[in-house]
Amino acid sequence: MKSILILCNGNPPSERLFREHYNPADYLIAADGGGNIALNMGIDPDVVIGDLDSFIPDPPHSFEVIRRGDQEANDLEKALRLAREKGGERITILGATGHRLDHTLKNLSVLKQFNKGFEQIRMVDNFGETLLIPRSFRKVMGIGTQVSLFPLSGKVTGITTSGLQYPLSQETLENGVRDGSSNRVVGRPVEITYDKGDLLLFVATR
Amino acid sequence: MKSILILCNGNPPSERLFREHYNPADYLIAADGGGNIALNMGIDPDVVIGDLDSFIPDPPHSFEVIRRGDQEANDLEKALRLAREKGGERITILGATGHRLDHTLKNLSVLKQFNKGFEQIRMVDNFGETLLIPRSFRKVMGIGTQVSLFPLSGKVTGITTSGLQYPLSQETLENGVRDGSSNRVVGRPVEITYDKGDLLLFVATR
Repeated sequence: MKSILILCNGNPPSERLFREHYNPADYLIAADGGGNIALNMGIDPDVVIGDLDSFIPDPPHSFEVIRRGDQEANDLEKALRLAREKGGERITILGATGHRLDHTLKNLSVLKQFNKGFEQIRMVDNFGETLLIPRSFRKVMGIGTQVSLFPLSGKVTGITTSGLQYPLSQETLENGVRDGSSNRVVGRPVEITYDKGDLLLFVATR
Repeated sequence: MKSILILCNGNPPSERLFREHYNPADYLIAADGGGNIALNMGIDPDVVIGDLDSFIPDPPHSFEVIRRGDQEANDLEKALRLAREKGGERITILGATGHRLDHTLKNLSVLKQFNKGFEQIRMVDNFGETLLIPRSFRKVMGIGTQVSLFPLSGKVTGITTSGLQYPLSQETLENGVRDGSSNRVVGRPVEITYDKGDLLLFVATR
């Protein structure tokens, strides 16, 4: 079980975006109300997990439903624990952003919490892709692509980039002090390195 | 000029929410494309400010339009600088969340940057209200209201609450380690104190 798609109950992905990520995935975990989103698109998830306060199966389903009522964990955490149990390596999360800001912020916190447990986790929505990048990151991206860098928690130090319109050289980003939003890809590949902290990369897709 | 409403170009507020905040405001600043949202609701803003890459006035308008092309500042920053020039004390921001995650995160960073310059700044959307609270915060809220506490940047230490279902007592919150999401009002008033950091309070309104 390499590639796992998780569908949460935030702002739903477009059907095109959902199918783009569903087709190559080995396994689909719906986090609670995310199950309704899948069913509405005519797809049965492999499993629905959560406290099931939002999932309303209609018509009766044949897939696995796991009720985990733990109040300390949100639905995305429950889905990521299951993804780990299933041997997931590359995780794509849809529907984790865009509606309630508290849920989006909690999901970003969960992203940090689980980031080291997988080869890759990324949150994808109709606007772009968000991931916590490793200390040394390198990727070929389309020239002109809008990208932003954010410190997820506290300072991120020693950031150096190449391939971006506004390059950083051994610089520090900190919320409310300095951030790296609204940058743009101008070279290939984009390379980003940093010393310390949790650096979030947002890549716009439209 | 006491109470200023700022309308940004993120997820648009419902017309009900917009009018609820527009009616008591002394002044309406539309941040770039936020101007279209106001016009679509039949309201002329007092001013539209930004680099004007999103604002498309139709039909021709009679209100003030300020073009500020500064690439270092986003549209909300430009609006908040103008709010300061206009003598704004209490600032409500609509449309700053919900669409692009990079814009939402940038706007939260701007919230921190400008927070000390005003008596109050809050971001309001169709799901709730978000503000950076002072070291000692006290407010009467409806029993059962969902609230979440988040560290905006790094750790927030020495947090003590009363009136909440899951109380905190001299505790630390940190992204990816511990957060205070999905709490609930159980007493009046809610009191929150803390020692150090930037503590974001989200209050759900539905």
